[in-house]
Amino acid sequence: MKWERKDVLGIRELSPDEINFILDTADSFVEISTRDIKKVPTLRGKTIINLFIEASTRTRTSFEIAGKRLSADTINITASSSSLVKGETLIDTARNLEAMNPDIVVIRHSAAGAPHMIAKLISQSIINAGDGAHEHPTQALLDMMTIRLRKGSLSGLKIAIIGDISHSRVARSNIFGMTKMGADVHVAGPATMLPPFLDRFGVTVHTDMTGAIRNADVVMMLRIQMERENLNIFPSLREYSMYYCLNRERIGLAKPDVLVMHPGPLNRGVEIAPDVADGVNSVILQQVTYGVALRMALLYLLTGGTL
Amino acid sequence: MKWERKDVLGIRELSPDEINFILDTADSFVEISTRDIKKVPTLRGKTIINLFIEASTRTRTSFEIAGKRLSADTINITASSSSLVKGETLIDTARNLEAMNPDIVVIRHSAAGAPHMIAKLISQSIINAGDGAHEHPTQALLDMMTIRLRKGSLSGLKIAIIGDISHSRVARSNIFGMTKMGADVHVAGPATMLPPFLDRFGVTVHTDMTGAIRNADVVMMLRIQMERENLNIFPSLREYSMYYCLNRERIGLAKPDVLVMHPGPLNRGVEIAPDVADGVNSVILQQVTYGVALRMALLYLLTGGTL
Amino acid sequence: MKWERKDVLGIRELSPDEINFILDTADSFVEISTRDIKKVPTLRGKTIINLFIEASTRTRTSFEIAGKRLSADTINITASSSSLVKGETLIDTARNLEAMNPDIVVIRHSAAGAPHMIAKLISQSIINAGDGAHEHPTQALLDMMTIRLRKGSLSGLKIAIIGDISHSRVARSNIFGMTKMGADVHVAGPATMLPPFLDRFGVTVHTDMTGAIRNADVVMMLRIQMERENLNIFPSLREYSMYYCLNRERIGLAKPDVLVMHPGPLNRGVEIAPDVADGVNSVILQQVTYGVALRMALLYLLTGGTL
Repeated sequence: MKWERKDVLGIRELSPDEINFILDTADSFVEISTRDIKKVPTLRGKTIINLFIEASTRTRTSFEIAGKRLSADTINITASSSSLVKGETLIDTARNLEAMNPDIVVIRHSAAGAPHMIAKLISQSIINAGDGAHEHPTQALLDMMTIRLRKGSLSGLKIAIIGDISHSRVARSNIFGMTKMGADVHVAGPATMLPPFLDRFGVTVHTDMTGAIRNADVVMMLRIQMERENLNIFPSLREYSMYYCLNRERIGLAKPDVLVMHPGPLNRGVEIAPDVADGVNSVILQQVTYGVALRMALLYLLTGGTL
Repeated sequence: MKWERKDVLGIRELSPDEINFILDTADSFVEISTRDIKKVPTLRGKTIINLFIEASTRTRTSFEIAGKRLSADTINITASSSSLVKGETLIDTARNLEAMNPDIVVIRHSAAGAPHMIAKLISQSIINAGDGAHEHPTQALLDMMTIRLRKGSLSGLKIAIIGDISHSRVARSNIFGMTKMGADVHVAGPATMLPPFLDRFGVTVHTDMTGAIRNADVVMMLRIQMERENLNIFPSLREYSMYYCLNRERIGLAKPDVLVMHPGPLNRGVEIAPDVADGVNSVILQQVTYGVALRMALLYLLTGGTL
Repeated sequence: MKWERKDVLGIRELSPDEINFILDTADSFVEISTRDIKKVPTLRGKTIINLFIEASTRTRTSFEIAGKRLSADTINITASSSSLVKGETLIDTARNLEAMNPDIVVIRHSAAGAPHMIAKLISQSIINAGDGAHEHPTQALLDMMTIRLRKGSLSGLKIAIIGDISHSRVARSNIFGMTKMGADVHVAGPATMLPPFLDRFGVTVHTDMTGAIRNADVVMMLRIQMERENLNIFPSLREYSMYYCLNRERIGLAKPDVLVMHPGPLNRGVEIAPDVADGVNSVILQQVTYGVALRMALLYLLTGGTL
């Protein structure tokens, strides 16, 4: 199989074959980061621009390490240093970057659709590193990679996604991907955090998290964005935590070999109890490790690499 | 010919032969950025420090890409992360950098003359990446490179530079360079934006932009710095735009094959109409592309390279 | 000899043999930065993360240059771009970085003990680049390296450290190191800047700086942190300067070949007179130069290098 798309903008448009192809490629990159010399010359002479108009340490660092381990030149541009502050349009910023002949532009932006708009305008490959509350495809891919490596396949697994579904691009991308891959996806959260018509996406909706967790193979907790506390979507962190924190008792409802996942950063004691985050079922740090391999795979495929 | 100067601080002191030598060298670097492997080992083991005491995405990114495509090690230091915030003098910052044995220090500073002061004190090569309202030599060089590549030569061309001439280091550097290279330079702007004695620099001064544009081979629009709107140098953006925006009608006064230029970032609808910025005469994005090659050429020449 | 420790957290725990081993290794790296091609392939394929939760240009730049001259991949993470702003614990940030398989994490943090806590939790090597008012081991090592290269040995030298001893991690690390290496260490400062029980550390304490300086082989001035002016530890900068500024007259009390040192950034005219900072006895800029070699040595030793 050969990768055909110019860009990776979302999970929604990817076929199961494409997802499996990415994950197969990513699996083959895991080993590089465990070597004594963690570097291959694959992308030597390629230029990768990380354009982060919204702050992020972990995703930017993951992409930067991925690029460097493939010997690419990586350039970071962050919002505060960006021309955007001088009133330039995002389109002009993108066209200017295009004119400097990068090979891939990785974009995080607070506005949904920003990477898609840029992808239509410029000839280089775009990777969406998170756009507003829309999609975060590389996170969903590394999540699916983690599950596949632990469970062999996503098909038939009961997967619970718990938290603020409405505002989570991680949830959206994972819902698209996991349902495509044959998983039985359940979501749970307070009614104020559940978008309408969620059932049309092929998921089962709960307001009581126990129904979602019961007998689950995977429980993915979403980060509560504490800066939203005053938006009246939940009464208080304390009350949220009382009903939706993944604690030892609740995780006991899931299968004994359940995978506990979280995209990070963790709010310990809010959406996840520390002993669960650090417990034997947690694969939270493996997600981070596989994230580097997954991003290496995408950089590789988008520059013409084949498995 | 061999490059003799330690530093590139301004266009004012360069001879036409030196300018042509830089542009010839830059022309030869354009092709590298179009290769599949956009990297040559020329500056391997050289250290380039980008010291940006005034924010800039495009210039810093251009220098960083230029350095990396030549295999140099590039280090970015920006104002917010700089010791300057702890009260260190600029001279001490520069001497400290010198002590770490870089090969070239690229400096942008809000104070006119800052790179010159540093160049006198430290042994390494300094490139002025813009100092206050004084000079921006790499911008003028890439502008002249763009014109030369399109028109063969600057000699005898009518070139109009329109906007806030008083506060523009781009205008100053280009006026020095273009007049040296034999162009017939016309400047236009509101009287409040024209410095006194401009005619002594060998340019023709207009307050009505049509006189400058008429029959021009090149029209270079300057960015209105909107943060200056309250300085009483112009009544309003709307009025400025009415008289000095390069729109379709006005560009019609120039030669049919006129080059439309702008150093960026664009204020679309203020100093330049979107259809002109994106029109067939626009070489705005070529300027960006050639900027990388031009900076590669300077880094190369300052580290002892020969054409 | 072979380096045995996973981390370099402080000088307090290092033996004189370990210190000498580091300094011997560092001496051998000085020459690399004077080459035409300032780069060796020693750490190719190694990943070094500079995690600076407290701002610093000179130390971060020094580590970044050191890493790049050894061909390592270097990743910068600064406080403002860090997940810490999203409420993640430092431990989780560290574990996340660990999961990306770096080889060394260099940490600066405003909290004393932060690097030690992280070092216990993660498997990779940690270098303390300054933790609160606790230790700054790489600064003390480069200071001792500078003295040793100039004086042959620290043993028997009279070394004066002048300034705000209480709040200075540079002073603490140097007191630990220099007394271990057999120097006769004298400290001086206003009583409000001297911690209690200082004599237990084997140093002689003065409130009048002349006693400390008289006949000294080395005078190390500490930076007054001007942002502390309102903490009532000294009446005014002017008064501080009157009693504790190293001026030409005072330095005349020391030996003729005294070394004048300062960790930077300098407050010229506050703790050190400009003519002394720039005088023939000053080795302030050599400290910076040796700092790069010292950090190269540590990166080398912590990744398994042997002398």
